[in-house]
Amino acid sequence: MTVRVGVIGAGWIGQEHIRRLTGTVTGARVTAVTDIDPARAEQAAARVGARVVADGAELIAADDVDAVLVTSWGATHAEHALGAIAAGKPVFCEKPLATTAEDCLRIVETEMEHGRRLVQVGFMRRYDAGYRQLKQVLDSGRIGEPLVVHCAHRNPTVPETYTSDMAALDTAVHEIDVLRWLLDDEIVSTQVVTPRATSRRFAHLKDPQIMLFETAKGVRIDLEVFVNCQYGYDIQCEAVGEEGLVRLPDPAAVGVRTAGRHSTEVLTDWVGRFADAFDTEFREWIAELAAGNEPSGPSAWDGYAATVITSATVEAIESGRVVATDMKPRPAFYGGTA
Amino acid sequence: MTVRVGVIGAGWIGQEHIRRLTGTVTGARVTAVTDIDPARAEQAAARVGARVVADGAELIAADDVDAVLVTSWGATHAEHALGAIAAGKPVFCEKPLATTAEDCLRIVETEMEHGRRLVQVGFMRRYDAGYRQLKQVLDSGRIGEPLVVHCAHRNPTVPETYTSDMAALDTAVHEIDVLRWLLDDEIVSTQVVTPRATSRRFAHLKDPQIMLFETAKGVRIDLEVFVNCQYGYDIQCEAVGEEGLVRLPDPAAVGVRTAGRHSTEVLTDWVGRFADAFDTEFREWIAELAAGNEPSGPSAWDGYAATVITSATVEAIESGRVVATDMKPRPAFYGGTA
Amino acid sequence: MTVRVGVIGAGWIGQEHIRRLTGTVTGARVTAVTDIDPARAEQAAARVGARVVADGAELIAADDVDAVLVTSWGATHAEHALGAIAAGKPVFCEKPLATTAEDCLRIVETEMEHGRRLVQVGFMRRYDAGYRQLKQVLDSGRIGEPLVVHCAHRNPTVPETYTSDMAALDTAVHEIDVLRWLLDDEIVSTQVVTPRATSRRFAHLKDPQIMLFETAKGVRIDLEVFVNCQYGYDIQCEAVGEEGLVRLPDPAAVGVRTAGRHSTEVLTDWVGRFADAFDTEFREWIAELAAGNEPSGPSAWDGYAATVITSATVEAIESGRVVATDMKPRPAFYGGTA
Amino acid sequence: MTVRVGVIGAGWIGQEHIRRLTGTVTGARVTAVTDIDPARAEQAAARVGARVVADGAELIAADDVDAVLVTSWGATHAEHALGAIAAGKPVFCEKPLATTAEDCLRIVETEMEHGRRLVQVGFMRRYDAGYRQLKQVLDSGRIGEPLVVHCAHRNPTVPETYTSDMAALDTAVHEIDVLRWLLDDEIVSTQVVTPRATSRRFAHLKDPQIMLFETAKGVRIDLEVFVNCQYGYDIQCEAVGEEGLVRLPDPAAVGVRTAGRHSTEVLTDWVGRFADAFDTEFREWIAELAAGNEPSGPSAWDGYAATVITSATVEAIESGRVVATDMKPRPAFYGGTA
Repeated sequence: MTVRVGVIGAGWIGQEHIRRLTGTVTGARVTAVTDIDPARAEQAAARVGARVVADGAELIAADDVDAVLVTSWGATHAEHALGAIAAGKPVFCEKPLATTAEDCLRIVETEMEHGRRLVQVGFMRRYDAGYRQLKQVLDSGRIGEPLVVHCAHRNPTVPETYTSDMAALDTAVHEIDVLRWLLDDEIVSTQVVTPRATSRRFAHLKDPQIMLFETAKGVRIDLEVFVNCQYGYDIQCEAVGEEGLVRLPDPAAVGVRTAGRHSTEVLTDWVGRFADAFDTEFREWIAELAAGNEPSGPSAWDGYAATVITSATVEAIESGRVVATDMKPRPAFYGGTA
Repeated sequence: MTVRVGVIGAGWIGQEHIRRLTGTVTGARVTAVTDIDPARAEQAAARVGARVVADGAELIAADDVDAVLVTSWGATHAEHALGAIAAGKPVFCEKPLATTAEDCLRIVETEMEHGRRLVQVGFMRRYDAGYRQLKQVLDSGRIGEPLVVHCAHRNPTVPETYTSDMAALDTAVHEIDVLRWLLDDEIVSTQVVTPRATSRRFAHLKDPQIMLFETAKGVRIDLEVFVNCQYGYDIQCEAVGEEGLVRLPDPAAVGVRTAGRHSTEVLTDWVGRFADAFDTEFREWIAELAAGNEPSGPSAWDGYAATVITSATVEAIESGRVVATDMKPRPAFYGGTA
Repeated sequence: MTVRVGVIGAGWIGQEHIRRLTGTVTGARVTAVTDIDPARAEQAAARVGARVVADGAELIAADDVDAVLVTSWGATHAEHALGAIAAGKPVFCEKPLATTAEDCLRIVETEMEHGRRLVQVGFMRRYDAGYRQLKQVLDSGRIGEPLVVHCAHRNPTVPETYTSDMAALDTAVHEIDVLRWLLDDEIVSTQVVTPRATSRRFAHLKDPQIMLFETAKGVRIDLEVFVNCQYGYDIQCEAVGEEGLVRLPDPAAVGVRTAGRHSTEVLTDWVGRFADAFDTEFREWIAELAAGNEPSGPSAWDGYAATVITSATVEAIESGRVVATDMKPRPAFYGGTA
Repeated sequence: MTVRVGVIGAGWIGQEHIRRLTGTVTGARVTAVTDIDPARAEQAAARVGARVVADGAELIAADDVDAVLVTSWGATHAEHALGAIAAGKPVFCEKPLATTAEDCLRIVETEMEHGRRLVQVGFMRRYDAGYRQLKQVLDSGRIGEPLVVHCAHRNPTVPETYTSDMAALDTAVHEIDVLRWLLDDEIVSTQVVTPRATSRRFAHLKDPQIMLFETAKGVRIDLEVFVNCQYGYDIQCEAVGEEGLVRLPDPAAVGVRTAGRHSTEVLTDWVGRFADAFDTEFREWIAELAAGNEPSGPSAWDGYAATVITSATVEAIESGRVVATDMKPRPAFYGGTA
């Protein structure tokens, strides 16, 4: 069975996913596209033989749409996610699930009333081969109970539109999700300390920032977010447990020796870093839908948690204080611990 | 346009490729399957909704077959490749293209008479991300003209059916192809020296073997083939040039520190090592066919060269002497140097 | 000219240094030894043909003692350092210079009155080849201005006598000194957060601890102190600057591939890790004294700073609060910035 | 007891060792120096307070010389080694022990008649920490019986005076000695194949060369000698056994990430690479003499074997043929196997 996907939002990431669902992932077809810019929708749709529909509501309702992909502007996510649930259709929503905790919670509650998982949130790191190996080691008990995690998230540069709160909302959000999943644990407090800022940034920006998270079980996480590090796109993660540690590998790259140096390339864009993870994310999502299963990826609850924690972290950035995350108890509906 | 593929040979590798063309690579559909064991063909076909046909000839002739995949027993490859060319259909032939140089040459000549490339041979290493990076460095001139290449091809164990000549025919053949491509150069002589044999082998087998190749440009290659190395499946390649060297990376793997050791996993099966390469190989083949292009992968000429060189290497294993490869001049039809 | 060294304190570290000054470092001779345990002094002295003297004061005054090495109990360091300065003799004092900031300051002031550097404090990391390479990179400007430093200091286990404050006083003190030197910057505040404790510790101990330092220039340092990490003695340091980063190497170790793993040894004792640094430390100290120069290693001021910062860190461990280090302005006498 | 060393030959390496015996190694003193250039002897002697003597014979006979260090021109080594044995004095002879197998054999026989080991040959690699770790792994049985060894010996450049035979006599000789020791096995044949030569060499030179050795137990060794590799001084060694492999580490070096690359320095001179090995070599030699023991380092027999094997390799370079090493049976006097 081919899963017919309707896409709400044909910007860069929407187009990437349309390309992926068409040319990389088997078992799916993009049948309908909508965008606030009709010309952009037209172009994106034409490329894959899909039709353009007027808006999200029409797309969700369409007979030739089995599943909905939301890649529109963040502020519109909640409306479309709720619409899809109301229509009983699976919906893959790019991060954030919604921009406020309240909206996320409404989606969670609506999905629970529906009685079956329909929502998956686009946190692709859970599909990265390295993180999956890391989780396997953690779950195996080889390093014992985790106690500390050291992370870094570095981008070469960001444009002037990137503001200090985006370090939490757009950047750290990936670590926040993947750490909750790796540790099967919840983040309960957040603090941000700001080193001397790099001179290679726009003046309004705090960069780098060191974020400190604490989990329910007491694990301490430090995360360096540095979005103008110049040298590359570099993701580091090291979990230290009672018996040992495990470290995320760098992407495999040929070693070159010339002129007194041994060197390997460091990637400079995040698309290359997580391209395989995106492919796997959609491959598994489509396979689960085709098999009639609930999606097994990041849930609406995970989307809610990410929004609560990133919001608290924005508060921490602004206040300089330790901020407790004010999260509801996890419903049994979503299984797991975190 | 979906490329409709007919598969001749539904053994292990045939089933792997059927699965790949169905579930991993977009734009293709397996429509027909044949095998000398009809029950096996039936099973493989049923799994993907294809029909079973009586034999290769019928499959090649079938209207619902746009392209042919030959994964049958090596001795039958030539017949099917020639049949496909006669029918003007693209054919992907697992290695070897044919078991004798004469048969390979007949395929080459028949294809040249046809006037357009139809044949691709299944040497997947050219699609491995690491080898591609390595070729990029070589082609960039960063390390200057290549002079020496050091390689190792190690398998944990092989069954009793694996004989000394298979070290050339089934194992080294992958290095032989990928080195010709990496260096854009031809192998002109081959020699094999045999170290003390490992006690962890079947008694009839020479293992390990050190193969020494020389290219037309004078590059010297040493290749350790060790198929009972016990510890893992390990592929090494280091090219040394006038200004520096480049080395194939090991697959990315998490680092773990426990009990006084830092360790990373070494793969133990070749399927895992080259799974992505196989996917890319078929993805690109299908994309080229869908676009109406000639295949750009390993050609019939490459298949001929591999058979000539592996045959010479078998002679070298048996004689202990340096054996010149007796290869025809490369036809302009196939472009390139090697 | 052979430098004749008198040693105050013949415990484990004293004996190590006696052995080093006798058997590893040229140009020195241990001529006199004293210890509160006369038998221990006797044994240590006999081994190298030195004489035993009654106490530190006598040793400092002795004609056959050109330079004094203080390896006695920490609480006695100040007395001996002051005694040596009064006698106008160079004194190498194992860490801490003194157990209180007041005592350290007295030594600093006394030395300044003397008008010439006599005191060196035993922070050996500045002599480690890896740290020296790291400093060279920092000083070269290759990675730009430093902004963040990530460190870890892990021991396999500690005995029951090791208490939570020792994480600052005995363990982190090495990073505190080496970071001040690496960054040529002063630590102005300290904070400690405590993750969930490992079950593999004595119950009274906070372990691991995450220490957070801020420098005068705004560099942020995080240091994981984990003294029961089980797996090894592991020292990590990574400095992130405006243009790139630099990372301390692991000690060179053969790579071994067996049974599906590539592994290298992680050291399990700190003596092995810094043995070469100790040798270099004493080699350079003796060479400077022999040449009639002032010692160029960690100064009395560095000893004072370390005591102020570790004391503040102990307060931070106990209070959970950010604690400012209350340090006097750096006297021009000591040059440099930090 | 201080060992009083007389040095025959005050060229570069002689001066290096004088410096080492004076300033780095404890327990030794250089008391006498001679050189065919009296001015050079004068300078070298003055620097360390030694006296100049007329020639090797006088130096060997001198009362204030306990042990002799021969660092003169290779062709004179035999004479001085024999002289020292005749005088019953320990002699450390830089490689080669002698330039002909006959002379080496005469030294061996003379030493055996003397009845006690006096001669040590200056093969410093046995004292390198990495090679020692490698030997430890081999001896432990962790990787099983060794079968194959891959080596590379690369120098950035050599002067015009360096001729093709020096690739064996001066360069490969280090691998030849260290491999005999690592494997506790004898080299019985040698072959050299020459790749296309680098354009970055003097025209008379074969560079690179691939040397192929076979041992008595059947281990096969390939050694790339490349003395104009441009990029650095790089020593590689990987031993493959029945159960796994072990690889020499690169020297520890800080990792730096800048401008899209992770890089570590590759050394460019051999002095830096083996400085610690030289120190250890002399430290252990002096300690053994001081203790009244026979030297335990490379013996006269090892010097003989190296000369036989390098001579055979020179023949192999010139003839292109496999050349058997024509070695006498190992006398029980020298213990061991190789």
